[in-house]
Amino acid sequence: MFLNMHHECMFPGRAKAAQPTKIIPIACRSQCRGLALLFLTAVLPVIARAEKREFDMTIEDTEINLVEQQKFHTFAFDGQVPGPLIHVKEGDEVIVHVNNLTTLPHTIHWHGVLQRGTWQSDGVRDVTQAAIQPGDTYTYKFIAEPSGTLWYHCHVNVNEHVAMRGMWGPLIIDPKNPLPIEKTVTKNYIMMFSSWVSKWADKPGYGGVPGDEPDYFTVNGKAFPDTQPLRVDPGDVIRIRLIGAGDGLHSIHIHGTVFQIVFKDGRPLASPVLADTVLFGPGERKDLIIKCDNPGRWMVHDHIDSHTVNGQKPMGGMMTVIEYNNVKRDDSFYIWRNKQFVPDFYYEESMKKPYGKYDAPGFKGKAIQ
Amino acid sequence: MFLNMHHECMFPGRAKAAQPTKIIPIACRSQCRGLALLFLTAVLPVIARAEKREFDMTIEDTEINLVEQQKFHTFAFDGQVPGPLIHVKEGDEVIVHVNNLTTLPHTIHWHGVLQRGTWQSDGVRDVTQAAIQPGDTYTYKFIAEPSGTLWYHCHVNVNEHVAMRGMWGPLIIDPKNPLPIEKTVTKNYIMMFSSWVSKWADKPGYGGVPGDEPDYFTVNGKAFPDTQPLRVDPGDVIRIRLIGAGDGLHSIHIHGTVFQIVFKDGRPLASPVLADTVLFGPGERKDLIIKCDNPGRWMVHDHIDSHTVNGQKPMGGMMTVIEYNNVKRDDSFYIWRNKQFVPDFYYEESMKKPYGKYDAPGFKGKAIQ
Amino acid sequence: MFLNMHHECMFPGRAKAAQPTKIIPIACRSQCRGLALLFLTAVLPVIARAEKREFDMTIEDTEINLVEQQKFHTFAFDGQVPGPLIHVKEGDEVIVHVNNLTTLPHTIHWHGVLQRGTWQSDGVRDVTQAAIQPGDTYTYKFIAEPSGTLWYHCHVNVNEHVAMRGMWGPLIIDPKNPLPIEKTVTKNYIMMFSSWVSKWADKPGYGGVPGDEPDYFTVNGKAFPDTQPLRVDPGDVIRIRLIGAGDGLHSIHIHGTVFQIVFKDGRPLASPVLADTVLFGPGERKDLIIKCDNPGRWMVHDHIDSHTVNGQKPMGGMMTVIEYNNVKRDDSFYIWRNKQFVPDFYYEESMKKPYGKYDAPGFKGKAIQ
Repeated sequence: MFLNMHHECMFPGRAKAAQPTKIIPIACRSQCRGLALLFLTAVLPVIARAEKREFDMTIEDTEINLVEQQKFHTFAFDGQVPGPLIHVKEGDEVIVHVNNLTTLPHTIHWHGVLQRGTWQSDGVRDVTQAAIQPGDTYTYKFIAEPSGTLWYHCHVNVNEHVAMRGMWGPLIIDPKNPLPIEKTVTKNYIMMFSSWVSKWADKPGYGGVPGDEPDYFTVNGKAFPDTQPLRVDPGDVIRIRLIGAGDGLHSIHIHGTVFQIVFKDGRPLASPVLADTVLFGPGERKDLIIKCDNPGRWMVHDHIDSHTVNGQKPMGGMMTVIEYNNVKRDDSFYIWRNKQFVPDFYYEESMKKPYGKYDAPGFKGKAIQ
Repeated sequence: MFLNMHHECMFPGRAKAAQPTKIIPIACRSQCRGLALLFLTAVLPVIARAEKREFDMTIEDTEINLVEQQKFHTFAFDGQVPGPLIHVKEGDEVIVHVNNLTTLPHTIHWHGVLQRGTWQSDGVRDVTQAAIQPGDTYTYKFIAEPSGTLWYHCHVNVNEHVAMRGMWGPLIIDPKNPLPIEKTVTKNYIMMFSSWVSKWADKPGYGGVPGDEPDYFTVNGKAFPDTQPLRVDPGDVIRIRLIGAGDGLHSIHIHGTVFQIVFKDGRPLASPVLADTVLFGPGERKDLIIKCDNPGRWMVHDHIDSHTVNGQKPMGGMMTVIEYNNVKRDDSFYIWRNKQFVPDFYYEESMKKPYGKYDAPGFKGKAIQ
Repeated sequence: MFLNMHHECMFPGRAKAAQPTKIIPIACRSQCRGLALLFLTAVLPVIARAEKREFDMTIEDTEINLVEQQKFHTFAFDGQVPGPLIHVKEGDEVIVHVNNLTTLPHTIHWHGVLQRGTWQSDGVRDVTQAAIQPGDTYTYKFIAEPSGTLWYHCHVNVNEHVAMRGMWGPLIIDPKNPLPIEKTVTKNYIMMFSSWVSKWADKPGYGGVPGDEPDYFTVNGKAFPDTQPLRVDPGDVIRIRLIGAGDGLHSIHIHGTVFQIVFKDGRPLASPVLADTVLFGPGERKDLIIKCDNPGRWMVHDHIDSHTVNGQKPMGGMMTVIEYNNVKRDDSFYIWRNKQFVPDFYYEESMKKPYGKYDAPGFKGKAIQ
């Protein structure tokens, strides 16, 4: 699963590219002080050395299974939905060779990457590049900047390719200078949300148009009950990285906690928000941090209630459960008492590994010829 | 209207359960100071004594009237939509005996309650309990924590029961240590927002599925012009607690003021937001505070314009008016110049009463056998 | 284009009306300090003198072109969509004489204006006034308060007139005491977002009802590729004023930058938010500030992917490009390499002119008799 990664030392001068030059103080004194502090932190001598991270990636016609018998034709990065995790460090040079094995043109946009000096790698068809034609390979090259929860997706006919064909994956850039709260995190979870219109399931090249009625709703490409629990221990501090990958809004409620919304779009909030429900739209990312001090069995679900169905059937869609390991799972009423647990469904295992690109066998679909 | 409440002194040791252990400081100095201050405030000796609050509640097949002749079959708590106000103090022990008088299974989830040590009272069917079958009674027992604007709702087939059958009510937990701004509030209003799909009105057990087109939009179960005004006096400081109880998003605009958004999901915002329009999704709560210093007649409405219709008819749905009592209401053009004023429509009278559970006769529907 | 403006000195006593009396401190020390600072700033001696700004405005049956051959019947202010820019200074007295030349009743609501002492000028049909009947003229008179990005729109049958008939325009009120960051701004852009349901295009008096399916999505009344680029130079600091004028939500993503969200609804955020994607609902305004230090060609688009179509056709709707002038535009793949640039599409030229009302010839439609 650890594919195609070549480490090379990069020249240290690249580090300057990572300065947060976008931050402009305003007239609120305490705010200024906070920003100044952030700025000082950011320009401290950088000890970590930037690396070159080079990967190969394909785009493939792939059939995935959303839940039960609901299949969908996707254009899948490395044949999986979501695409492989790309996990690098702020300042790293990232090189990705993309080979389009489908019958339609595509690109990859690295959503959130500044592309300072490399706008031609921004991946927008007819704006920053010509589309990658079927059979062709294209190379993207950029500095991993800024840090945080980013993602990548196709930028051709996004109304279909992104909203309906699973062309997205997570890009996590670890900061050179993490916030104190980040250092306390024991487990990282990534959740990518997407809606699907089943009538287009087997009609690649069509869909994502006015009049569509989404009827399947997935987290990391799966709908409940085919999602997976998050298993935690008391004392864990978990970070959940929510990514609006599809076409809809989501209002995610987590039971049994008041969480902190600490990051938006990869950037720390100067003023984190306490909440039990978090709203986000397509393209947005919100990172939550939860201190696991309340053992129990806690639902996590979209409170847009219609997103908790599979087709016309209730109790599906965007739902999962945080399970404390010190709470038995054998209640006769518990729907997941015999659940086959598959770790890494939320990339929590891959996120513990060294930097690199990680494919996930569980997300692989069936090749379509 | 003051039902079934039994007071008993609780053991003081319970007070520790209310510590805000979810708050984790981050690397912004001014933010830390604010959080530290909150923390210090929270651990001061608690003088108010926690009480036991014990209530009975039913779930009943009930027909309500959204507006004019538009009726709807609901599964109504105590036979009313919204459900009765439950108003308690942080740290109180709350015990609710729920008797399901309908023909379908239900539960009650106490949205926002931490359920520390009582996860089995979280009310999620097939996760924390088996559903309450028709005729059965179930008892929920938990500590009222954290404080703020919370709510309760069924957690069975939420796509229908919550989105379409009126199974929700307000749960207000007063803080042991209110913010200074809270102490200035003279009137409390609660607004629960919900959308309805009329084609399911008389088909209980169905609805809340893809393809539904909401065509009625209510505040506290009523659509304009059957909503009620908010009558205020100059000098009032009003708090409006907005609750996203249904399946849609709302973008509420209040004329004639720049309000402060002070709480989200019951928790104080470290950095309150000034606004004239506030967006929220299902499950979210936002508490606004308005200093009434601008006499006039001010619209309050959803700026999602299509939410201001009743069926195909314009000028309905989610609209009301803030009326200053020192402004005459007799303008010939004023649509509500002869309005029959019903106080307590936004629970403003009930919120002034001692802690307890309050049914509201105006929200009662007609029993369905 | 500089129409009907009469300058007159106003009495200085009016200045007191502009005090931010809505700001109520809460119990967070650093927050209080920030607010106190804002307050001190606000009560410094006001040197700028308030002026009287008097304008005439019409409402006209007008046919506009959203994109390509998609026409739409609108009720257009001064015969244009969006309506003319009204640009004044905080504290100015604004007088607008509105002449309704259409066949249906209308009003104008000045969204965000406090209307302190002038609630009868708030423009809500049947609440603050009788509607302006066809052929009639009505005069609105109010103090420009508070400052910021405001807008105006009809308040009759908003589900059709606002959501579907283009009855909105920008009202920008410059502050007496701008924030330091505002003083660095070199270019101001205004973007008004709106959705359209083509089946109602030629059916004025109908539309904006449940069951509608928006299929055209515009910025300032035009859909891509008929929108215009934003042309900037390195060193520019641009402010983009996003206005949710239509019936939908938008999740606007800007490539190649981490922008700052500095204002909401015209009011400065005590704690600005860094982001690459910003969500807003109808009626909301968010002002972004971008320091242009990253030359390239950067997409700006709604990440609600279905909003990037024209009817059933991909790559339309709410999309545009930030073009750095120091980057050549002649790449053969660039869809806008031969774009006819029309400055002032985002009011960027009009915003540089003296205070007044500015019609925009490019937004004018064809009169309908």
